[in-house]
Order: sequence, then structure tokens, then C-alpha cells
Amino acid sequence: MKQGWFITIEGPEGAGKTSIIQRLTQGLEEAGQTVTATREPGGISIAEQIREVILNRENVLMDGRTEALLYAAARRQHLVEKIMPALEEGRIVLCDRFIDSSLAYQGYARGLGMEAVYDINRFAIGDFMPHLTLLFDVRPEVGLERIKAHREQEVNRLDLEALSFHQKVREGYLQLASQFPERIAVIDAEASIESVYQESLKFILAKIKSRQE
Amino acid sequence: MKQGWFITIEGPEGAGKTSIIQRLTQGLEEAGQTVTATREPGGISIAEQIREVILNRENVLMDGRTEALLYAAARRQHLVEKIMPALEEGRIVLCDRFIDSSLAYQGYARGLGMEAVYDINRFAIGDFMPHLTLLFDVRPEVGLERIKAHREQEVNRLDLEALSFHQKVREGYLQLASQFPERIAVIDAEASIESVYQESLKFILAKIKSRQE
Repeated sequence: MKQGWFITIEGPEGAGKTSIIQRLTQGLEEAGQTVTATREPGGISIAEQIREVILNRENVLMDGRTEALLYAAARRQHLVEKIMPALEEGRIVLCDRFIDSSLAYQGYARGLGMEAVYDINRFAIGDFMPHLTLLFDVRPEVGLERIKAHREQEVNRLDLEALSFHQKVREGYLQLASQFPERIAVIDAEASIESVYQESLKFILAKIKSRQE
Repeated sequence: MKQGWFITIEGPEGAGKTSIIQRLTQGLEEAGQTVTATREPGGISIAEQIREVILNRENVLMDGRTEALLYAAARRQHLVEKIMPALEEGRIVLCDRFIDSSLAYQGYARGLGMEAVYDINRFAIGDFMPHLTLLFDVRPEVGLERIKAHREQEVNRLDLEALSFHQKVREGYLQLASQFPERIAVIDAEASIESVYQESLKFILAKIKSRQE
């Protein structure tokens, strides 16, 4: 069991996660690996129903702890239905966001406490911690600038208000990286896509090699 | 804050919770108290959306831990939106099912572990443990018999299969009662409705009197 490799990709919006995951999938498959690329909440029906409750714009009264529990519930189901079976087949699973997102966004930036959010997530995922986490680090102003360029809209009041929140998210992520240096590799995501891709590939291949030795 | 009384009513289906809560509401209001009777998931939109995911018959792949996290999420929102405000107004809140249901059904009977389920629920409810819990104790075969009489159908294969599960639920409840004798009052719910009502009222009035003294 757990023959495959469970690799999570973390970082804020605008860090380039989606593009790099596409390239990694292709690059790893060309290197002879079988790859499952997924993202929370994944293509899993139950997780999507939970996601709908989280994102429903009418749910303005949603409490931060309710939200954290819903994310943990969606994570559990996605893990059981999609990630575990892929790992048991020996595949490399590249997952866009996982437990560290909850720790950085809800535990740290929203102030619920990293340890408390960690505990409910351990209930959700058990021993299925990622073998490797790539943290795409980018300053919030750079990430927001990329999003802005992408959607060709002006920065609005909410984007500006969000800057301090995104700074906290980054702090939370970097704190996790210094707490778990064996698991989390920090990658400078302000560099070119090619550079981020090559560095990511290097970390993944080194991890795979470590078991073969 | 927390001036009111938070009273939960626990027990299996067929224990008579609904009828007794109606009578208690009336009895306590006649005694000059203000009462909010509610039940999980309550009339709260977000909790109802979560409940829909839990009960959706198509979700056959739902994992036990996903379900436990969803119940905790619904509990949190119901608490914040409905129970806390009522308590702050000094009302008596009579709540049909709360944390002990998760402990008995999911922690004990489904085997997830009472302590693990307790932990995620403490994340959800914080210090808002009930002041008093009335546990309506009834043997599963009696409870199932009442349900059967109620719906005028024959006991089917699923009811029979469920008996051992309901026996475990009862064991879980009784274990909680011996663990928390200060909070949980066990009431013989095989007695007449009048007797169950009078005993419930007695426990509630004694609890209220304890603060006034």
C-alpha cells in the first residue's frame, strides 16, 4: 500500500501552480511515470457538493470554524475516493492544495490557530501526509499583479483589502516550511516559469530516487 | 453572556424526544420561562445545506470521517446562529441531539473513536457544552417497536440489521452517562410519556434552581 508518491503544490493564487502542474504532468509522464493531477475539491461529487456550500454567495453568515470543518470534510472524501486509490496503483499524485492551505489560510491568516486546524485535518487525513510539498513562494503584490494581468481588470477595493490577508498567508506558509523542512521545499515562484518548472522537477525526481536507493 | 440554560435531549429514535420536548416547552413557558426548542440541523440555512449533503441518497461513497466532520460543521453553524443568541437572551434552549449523538453514533457505534470525535467537536463548539443533558434510555428493540407502530410498516431487513448497531449506540450513550454524571441525567424512556415528562421537568427545574441559590 501507499506505493506511489503523494506530492502537494501550495502557494497563493497567482503563484503559477496550475501551469506548472500541467508541465510537471507531461514531464513526468515523458520520464515514464504514471501521474494523477488533481486539485481540491477534485472531480469527486461529494467534495463538490461541500464546495458548493462553502462558496455559496448567500452563506454570508458562515463561521470560520464551520468553513474549516467543511474543507476538512471535502479533503477527507477527495483523499479516500481519488488520492488513495491512485497511490495504491503506484501513481505520482500531484495535488493542487492540501492540508497546508488550511493551516496557512484558516489556521494562521484567519487566526483559528494552526494547531487546532492541524488537529481536525489529522482526523480527516490520518497518516496520509504528503511525501513532498512544493511551496511556490511569491510576494502577495506580485501574485495579485499576475492575477490582475490575467483577468484584465483593475485592482478593486477587495483586492487592496486582501493584501494584508495575503501577507499573513505567506507568513503562515513560510512558518510551515521552517517547521517541516524535510517535507516542504520552498521554490521562488517569482522566477520564470521554466525555472520554477525545472526546480520542481528536480525536487520530485530527487524524492523518487531516494526510495530507489 | 451565556445567561440562559443550554439543555440537550439525547437518545435513539423511538425514545420519545420530540413529544417530550413539545410538552417541556409548554410546561416551562407556563412556569414563566422563555424557551427555544430546536433540533440539529435547526432552521439554519447553512446547516440545512450541509444536512442535504449528509442525507443525499446518491452519496453512497461517503466516508465515516467525512460524515463526522460534516455533522461537526453543521453543529458549529447551528450553535453560532441560533443557540448562542438565544442563550445570550437568557432563554432556555432545548436542543434535540448535540455532541453526544456524534460521540455515541459515530465515535462509538461506527468505531471512529469517542476521543477523536470529541476533539473535532470541541473545535466546533468550544466551551459551549450543555449545562444539562437528558438521556432518554430505551432498549433498541423497544425503540424500534415504537417506530414500527408509528409508521405502520413491517420490520424489514434493514431494521433487523440495525439492531446490533442500535445496541452499540445505547452502550455508547450509557458509557458517556457514567463518564459525565454531573452533566448527563439518564431517564427511563420505557416508562409512560407522563412519567418521562415529569422526570425531565424535575431535572431541568433543579438545574435552574441551582444557579439561583
